[in-house]
Amino acid sequence: MIKAGIAGATGYAGIELVKLISNHPELRLSVVTSNSYRGKFLTDVFPSMRGFENSVCEDLNIKVLSKKIDVMFLALPHKISMQYVPQLLDHNIKVIDLSADFRFSDPEIYEAIYQKHTSKRLLKESVYGLCEIYEEKIKKTSLIGNPGCYPTSILLPLIPLLKEKLISSDSIICDSKSGVSGAGRALSLATHYCEANESFTPYKVGNHRHTPEINEKLTIHSKQKTNIVFVPHLLPLTRGMLSTIYVKSVNNTNEEQIREVYDSYYGDKPFVKILKRGMFPAISQVKGTNYCDIGIHFNADTGQVIIASAIDNLVKGAAGQAVQNMNLIFGFPEETGLNFVQTPL
Amino acid sequence: MIKAGIAGATGYAGIELVKLISNHPELRLSVVTSNSYRGKFLTDVFPSMRGFENSVCEDLNIKVLSKKIDVMFLALPHKISMQYVPQLLDHNIKVIDLSADFRFSDPEIYEAIYQKHTSKRLLKESVYGLCEIYEEKIKKTSLIGNPGCYPTSILLPLIPLLKEKLISSDSIICDSKSGVSGAGRALSLATHYCEANESFTPYKVGNHRHTPEINEKLTIHSKQKTNIVFVPHLLPLTRGMLSTIYVKSVNNTNEEQIREVYDSYYGDKPFVKILKRGMFPAISQVKGTNYCDIGIHFNADTGQVIIASAIDNLVKGAAGQAVQNMNLIFGFPEETGLNFVQTPL
Amino acid sequence: MIKAGIAGATGYAGIELVKLISNHPELRLSVVTSNSYRGKFLTDVFPSMRGFENSVCEDLNIKVLSKKIDVMFLALPHKISMQYVPQLLDHNIKVIDLSADFRFSDPEIYEAIYQKHTSKRLLKESVYGLCEIYEEKIKKTSLIGNPGCYPTSILLPLIPLLKEKLISSDSIICDSKSGVSGAGRALSLATHYCEANESFTPYKVGNHRHTPEINEKLTIHSKQKTNIVFVPHLLPLTRGMLSTIYVKSVNNTNEEQIREVYDSYYGDKPFVKILKRGMFPAISQVKGTNYCDIGIHFNADTGQVIIASAIDNLVKGAAGQAVQNMNLIFGFPEETGLNFVQTPL
Amino acid sequence: MIKAGIAGATGYAGIELVKLISNHPELRLSVVTSNSYRGKFLTDVFPSMRGFENSVCEDLNIKVLSKKIDVMFLALPHKISMQYVPQLLDHNIKVIDLSADFRFSDPEIYEAIYQKHTSKRLLKESVYGLCEIYEEKIKKTSLIGNPGCYPTSILLPLIPLLKEKLISSDSIICDSKSGVSGAGRALSLATHYCEANESFTPYKVGNHRHTPEINEKLTIHSKQKTNIVFVPHLLPLTRGMLSTIYVKSVNNTNEEQIREVYDSYYGDKPFVKILKRGMFPAISQVKGTNYCDIGIHFNADTGQVIIASAIDNLVKGAAGQAVQNMNLIFGFPEETGLNFVQTPL
Repeated sequence: MIKAGIAGATGYAGIELVKLISNHPELRLSVVTSNSYRGKFLTDVFPSMRGFENSVCEDLNIKVLSKKIDVMFLALPHKISMQYVPQLLDHNIKVIDLSADFRFSDPEIYEAIYQKHTSKRLLKESVYGLCEIYEEKIKKTSLIGNPGCYPTSILLPLIPLLKEKLISSDSIICDSKSGVSGAGRALSLATHYCEANESFTPYKVGNHRHTPEINEKLTIHSKQKTNIVFVPHLLPLTRGMLSTIYVKSVNNTNEEQIREVYDSYYGDKPFVKILKRGMFPAISQVKGTNYCDIGIHFNADTGQVIIASAIDNLVKGAAGQAVQNMNLIFGFPEETGLNFVQTPL
Repeated sequence: MIKAGIAGATGYAGIELVKLISNHPELRLSVVTSNSYRGKFLTDVFPSMRGFENSVCEDLNIKVLSKKIDVMFLALPHKISMQYVPQLLDHNIKVIDLSADFRFSDPEIYEAIYQKHTSKRLLKESVYGLCEIYEEKIKKTSLIGNPGCYPTSILLPLIPLLKEKLISSDSIICDSKSGVSGAGRALSLATHYCEANESFTPYKVGNHRHTPEINEKLTIHSKQKTNIVFVPHLLPLTRGMLSTIYVKSVNNTNEEQIREVYDSYYGDKPFVKILKRGMFPAISQVKGTNYCDIGIHFNADTGQVIIASAIDNLVKGAAGQAVQNMNLIFGFPEETGLNFVQTPL
Repeated sequence: MIKAGIAGATGYAGIELVKLISNHPELRLSVVTSNSYRGKFLTDVFPSMRGFENSVCEDLNIKVLSKKIDVMFLALPHKISMQYVPQLLDHNIKVIDLSADFRFSDPEIYEAIYQKHTSKRLLKESVYGLCEIYEEKIKKTSLIGNPGCYPTSILLPLIPLLKEKLISSDSIICDSKSGVSGAGRALSLATHYCEANESFTPYKVGNHRHTPEINEKLTIHSKQKTNIVFVPHLLPLTRGMLSTIYVKSVNNTNEEQIREVYDSYYGDKPFVKILKRGMFPAISQVKGTNYCDIGIHFNADTGQVIIASAIDNLVKGAAGQAVQNMNLIFGFPEETGLNFVQTPL
Repeated sequence: MIKAGIAGATGYAGIELVKLISNHPELRLSVVTSNSYRGKFLTDVFPSMRGFENSVCEDLNIKVLSKKIDVMFLALPHKISMQYVPQLLDHNIKVIDLSADFRFSDPEIYEAIYQKHTSKRLLKESVYGLCEIYEEKIKKTSLIGNPGCYPTSILLPLIPLLKEKLISSDSIICDSKSGVSGAGRALSLATHYCEANESFTPYKVGNHRHTPEINEKLTIHSKQKTNIVFVPHLLPLTRGMLSTIYVKSVNNTNEEQIREVYDSYYGDKPFVKILKRGMFPAISQVKGTNYCDIGIHFNADTGQVIIASAIDNLVKGAAGQAVQNMNLIFGFPEETGLNFVQTPL
C-alpha cells in the first residue's frame, strides 16, 4: 500500500482527494493537514466523512510527516505550495501539486500572473500533469503540476487537433462555464447562495489567470504563438464544468479526420470519451467522475468546428486527475480507484 | 383603457402577459383563452394569480371575443397563430403575435424551418417587434411578429455594430444560455427537475430554428449575407438568458467608437443598458425586468470584441417586449407598465 | 407624497424595501443609508436597481436626515436599531423597525435572548406590527416593531384559533422551513452556495430566538402560558417560508368552525388567504408577494388540525409587512403599493 | 460471484441499483430489463453509465432470464411486481422487491390503498426489509419487501423508542421532506423544473400511502394501535430526505435512556448513526450514501422529544437498502459494496 498525505484536506479539492484516496485499492491515507482546522477531527469539519472519526487535521510539518508518506497531494493556495515542495522532494516524497506553482514551463509567465517563483529550478523538473498528453513524462517524474480545471477542459480537445494541424491556432474561442465549487470553500459575496442561485454571469473577462496556462501549452503543441479568447462564466450548480470551443479547420480537414485524430490520441484512454455525431456532453453525465466527454459539430460548408467538453471540476479538473497522475507515477493502471460507476443524479 | 386579450394565457409567456397587463395602468385584461384549461378559472391553474378568481379560460373564438378587445396577444404555438391572425385583423384588432409565424420577411425561410405559411400576404404587413430597432415601423402597424428570446439577446447588441460597419459580419459566434422556462410548460424529459437540475448542456447545436431568424435580420442590417455560429445551452435556473458574443472589429475601430455607436442607438432607450467598462451583465440583474444589459470587452491588440447581453427570456424575450410593442402601437410611452423596480433576488 | 428613508438599505430586507417603496404610489424614497457601503451609489451595490444611479448610501445621521423624511424604515441589526429610535421619534418621524428591538411587550424576555434594552420606555409605546391582528393599534402609533418572518407565518394562523378557543394551547408544534435569504447577506459557511445547495437541515433546534417572540404573542391571545415546539429548517431556495403547524382542536370543534373563525378574522383582509379544502400553499404561489396563504387539514376522527402557511420571508415576513404598517399609520388603504400581480415563476 | 438482475433498470431507483451492483465486489450484473426502453442500450438511456455500452435493456421474460441470475431486484411499479414474483421464486431466484407489493403483513391494508393482491400466500413468506430491525428474518428469506423511503426514515428512529416504551404511541407527528427524485422519472407538472424549483409545498396531506405502511410496523412494535400524523413535502433538490419527528416521552424517560436504547439497537450497525447532542443531520451529509443519520433534542422540562433523521431516498430509501438486504440474504457482511467514502458536495 502506498501511503498518501493530503495538505489542505479541508478545502473542496482536498476533501475530494480524501474520498478518492480512501476508495482507492492501492492507497492508504496516512496524513491530512489543514491550516484552518488544525487540531480538529476531519469529521468535525465534514460530518459525512464516515470512518475518519479519528483523523486529526495536522500541522503541515514536513519533517514530522515525511516518515509517514510516500506521496503528498498539495491542495494548497498558490505560492504556499512552492514553500513545501523542495523539502518534500528532498525527503524522496513524490509530489502532486494542485496549485498553479508548478504548471508552467516558463517562470516568467508564472511570475507575470502570480508572484515571484522561489523554486525555478524545480519548475524545470516538474511535469504538467495532463495525463492523456504527458503520460510518458509523468511516469518518470517526482513532481507534478496538476492542471487547472479550465485548462483541462480546453487542452484535451484542442491539443490533438492543433498538433496534427487540423485547425487554425488563430481565432480559438473558448466559452467556459463552471460550477460554484470551482471558487473554493472560502467565503465571498459571489458564492453566497442568494447571489449565485438563479443567476449566471461571465467573470474575469479577458484576464482570467488560466488563460496563460492554456496558451503556454497550446503554443508548445501547435508550434505557433497561440492566444485564445477565453471567457469563464459562473453556473448556478455545485460541481461540473463545460467548455464550448469554436475553432476553424484548415487544410481541407473533414469530420472524419478530426474523429480519427481523436481516436488515435484517446481511443485507448479510459477517461476521454469522444461522443458520437449529434451527441453533446452534459455536466450531469460526468459529475462525480474522472471523465472528459467531448462532442463535436463540424460544418462542412464553412469548416467551422464546434467542440463541447465537460468534466467534473473537482475530479478530472482537480482531485481525480491528481490520483490519475499518482497512478502513472507508481505504475498502477491509470484508472485504478477511478473507474467506479456513477449515475447522472 | 385599452382592452386586451391573451390567447394561450396558461403557458409561461401567457401567464407573464397576464401579470404585466394587470399591472399596466392603461390596459384592462378582458379575455384570457386556453386550450388546455378551457372552462377553468385562471386561479385553478395558477393559484398565485390573485384577483383572477373569476377569470375563466375561454375558447379562442374570434367572433365572440372580437367585441371585447382592442388588442390581442397571441401566446400560441407556431402555426396555430397564423390561423387566427387574419380574422383578428379583419375585426380591427391589433395583434401582437409571440410565435414565429410573423417574424420573417421571407416566407421561404419560414417555410424551410417551420411549415407552410398560410398568410404570406400578411407576412409583408407584419413588423418585427424588436422595439429599439423598428420603433417607427411598429408605431404604424397592426401586426407584430414579437421576436424570439435568443434573437432579442443577440440582435440588440449586434445590429448597431454591423450597420455602422464596426465589426465584420463574418465569424460571428453567439454562445447563448437560457433558463428552463424558455422551453415552456409542456412536459419533457429535458425539463424534468432531476434531469435539468445540477446539469448544463448545449442543445440543437448547428440547427436551432432561431438561427435563421437572427441571420435574416443581420443580413438586412449589414447588407451582407450573414451566417452566425449559434449554440444554445440549457441553464439550471428558471428565468433568464445570457448570450456571449464574439466578433471581430474592422476598419480600425476602437472601443470608444463602439460605445459611441451604442450610445447613439440606445442612449435614449429605456430598456437597453450599456454597462461601464469592466462590468458584465448577470441574469440576476435583469430577472423579472424588461431590460437588456450589455457588457463589452474590447481587445485593442487583436480587435477582438466580446459582448455579453442578458435578458429575462419571459420579459424582454417575450411578454415584456410584447407589451412594449403594444405601448408603441397605441402611443403610450414605451416604458409604461414596464418600469417597475426589481431586486436581484 | 410621504417621504421615506431606509436605514440599512443594502441588506436583503433593505433592498426589498427600496423596491417596494419605489413602486409605491404614495411614497417617495428620500434617503438610503448603509454602513457597509456608505458613500457608494446604490447601483454600485445592486446594479439591477435602475433609476437609483444617483442615490448615494448615506451615513445614518439623524440630525441631517430628519428634515428629509416623514417615516424611517430601520433594516438594521438588533441592538443598533434602538440607538436611533428615540432620536427619530423626537424629530416626529414615524418609525418602522424591522429588527427585534421593539417587538416585545416584556423587556425581560427581550433581554434574556438579545441584550440589555436601552429604551424600555419606548418598548411600551411600540406596537407589534402584525397588521391583520393589531390594525387599530397600528393606526395610532408612531413606532412599529415589525414582526419576525417565522412569527408572522405562525401567528397569523394560530392567533384566531387560540383566541376563539378552538385549539389547545398545549402541544403546538411548528415545523418551519425558510429560504436562505432569511439568513441575510452577511457571509457564512451555512449560506455558502455549495453548502446550502442540494441540502436541507434543521438548525437552532430548541433555541431559536423567534420562539419567545411567538410565545409572548400566543400567551397574550390565548390567555394561557403557551410554549410551542418550534424547529426551523434551511431550504435550498432564495425566497420564501413555509410553516407546517400541528395543533389539537378542543371543545368538539369541527372544520366548519375553524373556517368560520378564519373568515371572521381574515375574510376582509387583503393579504391572508385561506385556501379551499384539499388545497395547500406552496412557496412559489406567494413568492414576491405580501400574501400569507393558509391551508387546513382537519381530521374529524382525532381532532388533529394540520395547518400550512406560506409567506415570502422578505415581503410579508419583512419589507412588505413594513410597508403595510406604514400604510395603516398614514391612513392609506392597507394594500397600497402591495397589490401587484405576481406569477409563480 | 452472485449474478444479479434488475427489472425496471431505467427508472431512478433502477439506475441507482445498476451503479451499486456494478461497484459491488461480490455481484455481477447479468440482466437489466426495461419496459420503456426495451431493446436499447443502457448507455443510450443514460450516457453516463460507462462500461454498459453493450448492455441491452431486455424484456422481462422470467423463463429466459432465470438461468442467468441468482437474485432479482424488482424496481417496478406497484402491482406489476407481484405478477413476476411467484415465477421468480419458483425458479429459485431470490427476490428483492422495491415496490409496495410485499411490504405489508396484512393484505387488507395493502388492498385498501393499492389494489387487489394476487399473491397473498407469498405476502406471508415475505420479510419487510428494514435491515437493522429484521436482520435475522431477512437472512432466512427468499423474498424481501424493500421498505418505502419515508417509512425507512421514520421507522428507524421510532421503533426502538416505541418498543422499549420510552415514548408514547399517541401524538406522533412526522413532518417529512423529500427531494424530487422520490417522485420518479415519469413526467408530471409537479416535477417540471420550473414548477418545483424555488418552491416547497406539502402534498397528499392526510392521505399519503406510506402512512399505513408506517402504522402497520409501528403497531406491531409498540403493541398498540398506532396512528401517526404524517405530512410529506417536496423539496427543491434532487436527492435526499429528512424527517422531523415530534414525540412525547413517557415513564420519566431522560435523554440518557433514549441514547442508550439507540446504542443498544444501532451501536453495532454500520449504517445508522446517532449524532452527538446538539448535532442534527443534513441531507448533504447522507447524500449518495446508505446512511441514516439521526439527531435528537430532548426537552427535560416537557418530555418533548424532537428527532430528525436524514437518508438518501434513492440509497437507504431504495437501492442501497435493497443491496444491504441482498448482502444479508447471501451471507456477506452487511456493508459490502456500500461502505464507500462520500463527500457532502
